[in-house]
Amino acid sequence: MAEKVTPRSEDYSRWYTDIVLQAKLADYSPVKGAMVIRPNGYAIWELIQKNLDRMFKDTGHVNAYFPLLIPESFMAKEAEHVEGFSPECAVVTIGGGQKLEENLYIRPTSETIIWAMYKKWIMSYRDLPLLINQWANVIRWEMRTRLFLRTSEFLWQEGHTAHATYEEAEEETRKILNVYKTFAEEYLAIPVIPGKKSDSEKFAGALHTYSIEAMMQDRKALQAGTSHNLGQNFAKAFDVQFQDKDGKLNFVYATSWGVSTRLIGALIMAHSDDRGLVLPPKMAQRPVVIVPIFRADDEKKAVLEFADKIHQELKSRFNVIYDSREQYKPGFKFAEWELQGIPVRLEIGPKDVANNKVVLVRRDTMQKEFIERNGILDRVTKELDTMQKELLEKARNFRDQNTLIVDDYKKLREIMDGDGGFVMSHWCGSPECETKVKEDTKATIRNIPFAGDKEQGKCIVCGRDSVQRVIFAKAY
Amino acid sequence: MAEKVTPRSEDYSRWYTDIVLQAKLADYSPVKGAMVIRPNGYAIWELIQKNLDRMFKDTGHVNAYFPLLIPESFMAKEAEHVEGFSPECAVVTIGGGQKLEENLYIRPTSETIIWAMYKKWIMSYRDLPLLINQWANVIRWEMRTRLFLRTSEFLWQEGHTAHATYEEAEEETRKILNVYKTFAEEYLAIPVIPGKKSDSEKFAGALHTYSIEAMMQDRKALQAGTSHNLGQNFAKAFDVQFQDKDGKLNFVYATSWGVSTRLIGALIMAHSDDRGLVLPPKMAQRPVVIVPIFRADDEKKAVLEFADKIHQELKSRFNVIYDSREQYKPGFKFAEWELQGIPVRLEIGPKDVANNKVVLVRRDTMQKEFIERNGILDRVTKELDTMQKELLEKARNFRDQNTLIVDDYKKLREIMDGDGGFVMSHWCGSPECETKVKEDTKATIRNIPFAGDKEQGKCIVCGRDSVQRVIFAKAY
Repeated sequence: MAEKVTPRSEDYSRWYTDIVLQAKLADYSPVKGAMVIRPNGYAIWELIQKNLDRMFKDTGHVNAYFPLLIPESFMAKEAEHVEGFSPECAVVTIGGGQKLEENLYIRPTSETIIWAMYKKWIMSYRDLPLLINQWANVIRWEMRTRLFLRTSEFLWQEGHTAHATYEEAEEETRKILNVYKTFAEEYLAIPVIPGKKSDSEKFAGALHTYSIEAMMQDRKALQAGTSHNLGQNFAKAFDVQFQDKDGKLNFVYATSWGVSTRLIGALIMAHSDDRGLVLPPKMAQRPVVIVPIFRADDEKKAVLEFADKIHQELKSRFNVIYDSREQYKPGFKFAEWELQGIPVRLEIGPKDVANNKVVLVRRDTMQKEFIERNGILDRVTKELDTMQKELLEKARNFRDQNTLIVDDYKKLREIMDGDGGFVMSHWCGSPECETKVKEDTKATIRNIPFAGDKEQGKCIVCGRDSVQRVIFAKAY
Repeated sequence: MAEKVTPRSEDYSRWYTDIVLQAKLADYSPVKGAMVIRPNGYAIWELIQKNLDRMFKDTGHVNAYFPLLIPESFMAKEAEHVEGFSPECAVVTIGGGQKLEENLYIRPTSETIIWAMYKKWIMSYRDLPLLINQWANVIRWEMRTRLFLRTSEFLWQEGHTAHATYEEAEEETRKILNVYKTFAEEYLAIPVIPGKKSDSEKFAGALHTYSIEAMMQDRKALQAGTSHNLGQNFAKAFDVQFQDKDGKLNFVYATSWGVSTRLIGALIMAHSDDRGLVLPPKMAQRPVVIVPIFRADDEKKAVLEFADKIHQELKSRFNVIYDSREQYKPGFKFAEWELQGIPVRLEIGPKDVANNKVVLVRRDTMQKEFIERNGILDRVTKELDTMQKELLEKARNFRDQNTLIVDDYKKLREIMDGDGGFVMSHWCGSPECETKVKEDTKATIRNIPFAGDKEQGKCIVCGRDSVQRVIFAKAY
C-alpha cells in the first residue's frame, strides 16, 4: 500500500502492471512465462466462469474433461494445426522415471484429443449434435509475457461441437460468438465488434474464424473471444463419420470456440484509472464496502451501532466488506478499496448518524452523495445497476470517438504513428496488402465486421475494388 | 444400451467398469493412464465442486491458481517430499522447440510452488492466516490404472494454508477433515471414519495426516479425503518467516488438504446395483425423469397434456428429464435412466390420467407407488429427501455389519482371506507389525479413528501394549 500506481499518461504499460500487482490480482511466478492468479484475480475468473457456464448450458451445452497430455502423433494428424501449434508446445519426454516411447504434448488446445474420442462416440445422426465444453488450463510457450494478456499457461474454456451439416456448424459458430458478445457487454461492460478474421489470422485448422474485438484505453485492440467453423477438417483427420437418416456415411462438421483469463486483462484495461482497478458491479464478488468513521470513544458506539445495522441489511443481498479495523485511518482504507476496485463505498460518520444519512461514493465517477438511511438496500442496488450501464456507455463512447473512417493510406499511417485507434478502411482481400499495412504500421486487420459499412470502395493499399471496410488496429 | 451390466456377484470389478462405461460417466483415452470424464461424470464433479467450494468459502477460504509446471530444483527442497513424489512425475524437457535449461515437473501436488510464492506474500503476523484453495489437475504417473479410482491425471482441490502457530494449523487440519466428513455424509451419502494415518501412510513432507475412510460394497476401504498438518517443514524448505507481534521472526506453520475425482468412483461403488448407477438426489443434476406412456393416438393427446403440466410444475424446482421420445418403448427408457441413476422416475399412462394419479419409482428401492397428481411437487421433493437419508443409512448399516472387533491374528487373516471388511484390532504402533499384516493379508492400517475404542489392549501381531484399536482393511 506504500506503492503508488503509475499514471496512465506517464506509462500505460507500467500503469497496467502496477494495478495487477498492487491490487493483488496476479503475481509473477518463479516459473518462466507462468503467472500466479491471486485470490482477487481468481474471484473475477469465478464470475466469468459462473456466468458464461450458465449461458453455455442455456444453449444446450454440457461440460466434460479431456486429458492434458496429447500424443505427438495426434498433433500431427491435421496438417495446418500441427504447423500452427507444434512450435509453441511444452513437451513431456519422461514419465514415472522412464523415457517415454512417444512424446506427449501439453495441450495448446484440445481439438486432436477430443476428435480422437468423438470417433468412438459418434456413429449415427442420432449422436449429433454433440455440444461439449471444457474448462481447463493450456500451455502455449511464450517468450515475451504479460500478466493475464500473454502467459505460457492460461485458463480458458474450449467448446468443441459436432454437427451433421455445414449449416448447423455455421449456426453454432455464430451463436457462440453472440454469447461472447452478450457476455462482454452485459457483464464485463466492454463493447465489442463481432466479425470474421482474415485468412492469415484464422485458427490453424479452421475454415474460418470469427472474433469479438474490444478497444482498450490506449486505443489498442484486444481480441476477447474466438469461434471457429472447422468444417470437416478434424473429422477427416480422425476419420469421424456418421450414418445419416438414409444410411449414408458422411464426415462430421465441427466447431470450436474459447475465451480465456485474458478477459481479466481486458477488464482491467477497459475501465481502470490512476487510483487503481475499476470493476463493473457484476464482476465484483464484493461490490460494497462500508467504512465507519469515528474519533472518540463516545462517537464509536453510535457509529458502529448504526453501521452494523446497515451492514446487516445490505448483507441480505450483497457480499459486503465491513471495514471496521481500528489500526488504519479512513484515508488509508479508502485508497485500499479504490485500488481493489470495489464499486460502491459507504462512509458513515457521527454527523451521518445524526442526520440519518450515509455518504455513498461510486468508484468510477468518485462522486460523493449523501443518501437517506431508509431504503438504503434499494438505493445501493440502483446505484450498482446504473454504474454497470454507465461503464458500458463510457467505454462505447470512448471507442466510437477513437474509431475513424479513413480512405487515405498516408492518413492511416499517421494515425498508427500517433494516437492509434480503430481505423475503418477498405481492403481488397489480398494477404499482400494486409502484410504491407502490418509492416508499415504494426496494425493488423482485427476483423471484417458483420454489421455496417457494406459499401463499394477501393482498397486503401492497392486501390483495387473492395466491398467492405475492415478494422485496422494495433493489438494486444 | 444393448450391453448389460455384469452382476456384482459375478465380477465386482467388471460390474464397476461396466457402470462407468455404460452410464457414460467416463471413457478410456488413447493417452496411457489418462481418462476422459464424460458429461454424465463431469456433472457429478460439478456438484462436488459447487458444494465443497461453498463450504470452503463459509470457513474463510478463497481460491487462487498456481502454475502447472514446477522447476525440478523446487521439488528437491523438501527431502521427504521429493523422495515421495519425484518418481511418479511427468517431466517437461522441451518448451517452444528448445531443450529446457531446467526440467519442469507437472505438479503432482503444489506445496513447493505455493510455498515459493508464500515467501513473497508473508512478512508479518498481519498476513496470517492465509487460507487458499486451488481447483486443478495434477499428474502422478500410474502403471495400473482404474477409471476414477486411479488415473495418471486427475482433477482435485488442494488447500494450502499458512498460520502463526502450530495450534492454529492443527485446528485448520481438523476443521477441514470435518468439512470433508460432513460433505461425504450429507451429499455423497457415504458414512466415513475420520482418523489419523500411521506414519508409513502419511503425506510425504507432513508431520501427520488425517483421513476419512469409507467402505465400498466389496467391503474394501476407500480413502475419501486427506488433511495434512505440515508443521514448519515447507516454511523451512522455502525460508518463509514472519514477524510476530513482538517483532520476532518465526517460521510459518502450514497445512494442506485435498479431495479428487476419485470421490466419483467412491460414489458409484457405494450405492449402485446390478441395474447400474444409483445417485443420491443431491448428487444428481437431473433428479427426476418423466416417462409418458401411450399406445394409440387418442391416448397420446390426453397423456401428453397431463404430463406436460406436471413437467411444468416440477421444472420450477428440479432439472427434469421429460422423455417423450416416440421411437423408444417405455421399457427401453426405464432401463436407460436406471442405468444412469436418475433418482426418481414418474410414469404417466392413460389410466393414471383417468385416476388423476402418477406412478413414482424410486431408483434405490425400485418400489412403485401410485401418488396423487395434486401436490406432486412437494411429494417428489419429500421422496428425494427420504432417499438421500435412506441411502446414507443403508451404507452405514452395511459398513457396521462388516466391521468386526478382532483380537486374534488368525481370525484377522481368515477375514482378509475371506469376505474382508473393516477389522478393528489393537496395534502397538510399530511399523514392523504394520508391515507384517500387510504382507500376510494385503490389509493396511486405514487410520487410527478419532472416536471410540480408547482402551488398553494387546497388539494383535506382537502382543505388546496398545491403547487403541485401529482399522485394518484392504483398500483401493
